[in-house]
Amino acid sequence: MASRSSSSNKGANVFHKVLIANRGEIALRILRACKELGIQTVAVHSTADANAMHVRLADESVCIGPNAAKDSYLNIPSLLAACEITGADAVHPGYGFLSENARFAKILEEHKVTFIGPSAHHIEIMGDKITAKKTAVELGIPVVPGSAGAVDSDDVALKTAKEIGYPVLIKATAGGGGRGMKVAKTEKDLLEAWSTARTEAKAAFGNDSVYMEKYLGKPRHIEVQVLGDGQGNAVHLGVRDCSLQRRHQKVWEEAGGPTIQPEERDRIGEICAAAMRKLKYSGAGTIEFLYENGEFYFIEMNTRLQVEHPVTERITGVDIVYEQIRVASGEKLSMTQDQVSFYGHAIEVRINAEDPQTFAPSPGTITFYHPAGGVGVRVDSAVYQGYKIPPYYDSLIGKLIVYGRTREECLKRLNRAIDEFVVDGVKTTLPLFQRLIKQPDILAGNYDIHWLEKFLAENKS
Amino acid sequence: MASRSSSSNKGANVFHKVLIANRGEIALRILRACKELGIQTVAVHSTADANAMHVRLADESVCIGPNAAKDSYLNIPSLLAACEITGADAVHPGYGFLSENARFAKILEEHKVTFIGPSAHHIEIMGDKITAKKTAVELGIPVVPGSAGAVDSDDVALKTAKEIGYPVLIKATAGGGGRGMKVAKTEKDLLEAWSTARTEAKAAFGNDSVYMEKYLGKPRHIEVQVLGDGQGNAVHLGVRDCSLQRRHQKVWEEAGGPTIQPEERDRIGEICAAAMRKLKYSGAGTIEFLYENGEFYFIEMNTRLQVEHPVTERITGVDIVYEQIRVASGEKLSMTQDQVSFYGHAIEVRINAEDPQTFAPSPGTITFYHPAGGVGVRVDSAVYQGYKIPPYYDSLIGKLIVYGRTREECLKRLNRAIDEFVVDGVKTTLPLFQRLIKQPDILAGNYDIHWLEKFLAENKS
Repeated sequence: MASRSSSSNKGANVFHKVLIANRGEIALRILRACKELGIQTVAVHSTADANAMHVRLADESVCIGPNAAKDSYLNIPSLLAACEITGADAVHPGYGFLSENARFAKILEEHKVTFIGPSAHHIEIMGDKITAKKTAVELGIPVVPGSAGAVDSDDVALKTAKEIGYPVLIKATAGGGGRGMKVAKTEKDLLEAWSTARTEAKAAFGNDSVYMEKYLGKPRHIEVQVLGDGQGNAVHLGVRDCSLQRRHQKVWEEAGGPTIQPEERDRIGEICAAAMRKLKYSGAGTIEFLYENGEFYFIEMNTRLQVEHPVTERITGVDIVYEQIRVASGEKLSMTQDQVSFYGHAIEVRINAEDPQTFAPSPGTITFYHPAGGVGVRVDSAVYQGYKIPPYYDSLIGKLIVYGRTREECLKRLNRAIDEFVVDGVKTTLPLFQRLIKQPDILAGNYDIHWLEKFLAENKS
Repeated sequence: MASRSSSSNKGANVFHKVLIANRGEIALRILRACKELGIQTVAVHSTADANAMHVRLADESVCIGPNAAKDSYLNIPSLLAACEITGADAVHPGYGFLSENARFAKILEEHKVTFIGPSAHHIEIMGDKITAKKTAVELGIPVVPGSAGAVDSDDVALKTAKEIGYPVLIKATAGGGGRGMKVAKTEKDLLEAWSTARTEAKAAFGNDSVYMEKYLGKPRHIEVQVLGDGQGNAVHLGVRDCSLQRRHQKVWEEAGGPTIQPEERDRIGEICAAAMRKLKYSGAGTIEFLYENGEFYFIEMNTRLQVEHPVTERITGVDIVYEQIRVASGEKLSMTQDQVSFYGHAIEVRINAEDPQTFAPSPGTITFYHPAGGVGVRVDSAVYQGYKIPPYYDSLIGKLIVYGRTREECLKRLNRAIDEFVVDGVKTTLPLFQRLIKQPDILAGNYDIHWLEKFLAENKS
């Protein structure tokens, strides 16, 4: 029987007890991985979350503060105390909250508790936009081409635009909010756009300095999942297409991406894996790109597990949380790049307790809950029938992840799975997905990062 | 992105409307496949099942009779009437009930309704034990070696036993219930065993005629999943190990089988696929074997979908119900043998509403229901919180199917999934699985078809 990797998880349980510094579905996700690895678990919770599923299923639980996240899930002294009380020897931060907080990672280290994530240094580098971009360039990761600094003459403008390639975007150095921002589609438009941008910049910011970047009109959001072990080994697990976003929040994610071909995936994946090898990066990370016309342009790197990691798990068979725990415990990665294979297509939709028209949060009690099931369906959720969704945290209540051998098969299965998923008592985004899955653009995989906003604006009901 | 097969499902929706002649989880399984293929569904139900999930989710439903299965799910005139009323152009029989009833298949054909399954002729051949074995021999499928007829002299006994190979089993031709049945382990024991068997046979049945077969002491139950399109194309989807049985009822099934090596799987699989090509078999089928010391011995062939088909789906990515529908509609199989690959390991456990000690049925209302979820978990069930399990049918209420890259990973995941699966209000077999998964023999894959009965006898609590 061919197996995807020779992972034995041997040694991964050097941790005796892991404290999960999070809530909701991701706390349960981590708890499940720990259980499977034979590691004891500690759940932490705010007063509002006393009856949460992750609390019920953990071996131990500690209340770390009142409802507000700043007083509980973001409360570092409380979390340290919880580690102390329970004797936890490692902390998994999940996503959000303290997952990309270098100080938290450092403090844990000082207290001899392992932070299951990259080094504080890597969190810091990637947490700062300018340092992150600089690092990306040094590591050979493609970034949006642009002028080295201010573009302050006709000649420099023309020369720079030619180097970058049209269309180009001229932006105020002091800018923001679209003011002092102009697009030049061809050389013919350039000088007028440049001059207008300078005038607008001057008017808006009292400073006419502008710079220039490649303009991306209809980019997709494509991201590369990486795993490193801090010992110089790193792999990529292919790409995800997360272009369907509303207000920069992803709502629907696909692996491996409807328009990315295997050759492109392997090319950008190998660039990212090589970069992680150079960095000696440890743990899971995601390198996000805009993608247009076959080119990738670095946006940022997230130094943590991502909400949408299950689609990658489904098409590779790799358990990303296992690997995070393994490498944090000092083990090597359980696989090399040539042991990573890709099979079929997976899509995740995020079920939020929100009005599917206005996106207003809809906390309250779930009066009937029945998740989708059957072939090709994974549900990651921490809610249950009778559960009261508190109003204090983000509105994600579940993720529906569907697999198909082809994207077409995956979409058909997603359609039936959405139809049979029942959450009564609160409003959810399920009806939005029922609408989206009927759109020809979605079925054809023909969408960019602006598509969903446009669709929502045009289809108010 | 590598995809497992180039299936497009093109043409599979030549059926306009499929009537599902079954209930419970398998009715829902078929309904899901139809939905995914864009085919309308008709649920049928007894009066007891008016609120069943398959009824709620189908496009249409018809009550076909009172509670007793003989008056409803086995009631051919009622089913025909339901086809007539709804205009269904095909019937999927699921498993059990009428799924291996050649007469039903014939009657449907006469009424121009497609039976989604093999031809009535193939159902008949395989439904009769003697014809099935004869056919297996003709098709080159290995059977238990035995004497051609009665063994009526010392010489024939010695000669036959030598040909078969020790140990051998001597059985009364008129026999049953173990009387007139003796095992000879070596030639030294043979004549005495033969003579004793004859004496016992004479006493018990008034007839001292005995025959001889190869004796299997600790066989495993290994079965091969096949798919054919009735046009001479057929593939195998590997093997399942279903040795864990209680009173011939499977309770735990694995793919690809803890002790079957890929070479053995491919060897027996190819023998079965070749046999199906010769037969021009159509639809899904399972060829069951006893397996001992590297040899396979035919037991029987089931000419239908099996309860445990999801483990095969998980490790091959093939949707077996899609293929059944495709080929019944006249399409070719969507894959050739070289497009079938195997990845990792899957285990299914059958959740029955039964006392886990006595196995007495436990019908009643489910007061809390929360299926397991997360990575690698599939749940096929038709129950929900508040559902009242009727006492009239078999006690299977759900199937938990778990995947891992290795058997070890699969077992660890199964362990945590069993722990988080909650069914309150009725007794279920979940606690049995919690016990089984701690047994060293189970963890080592060291069990045969007698293991579970022995375990249950020795571990009464």
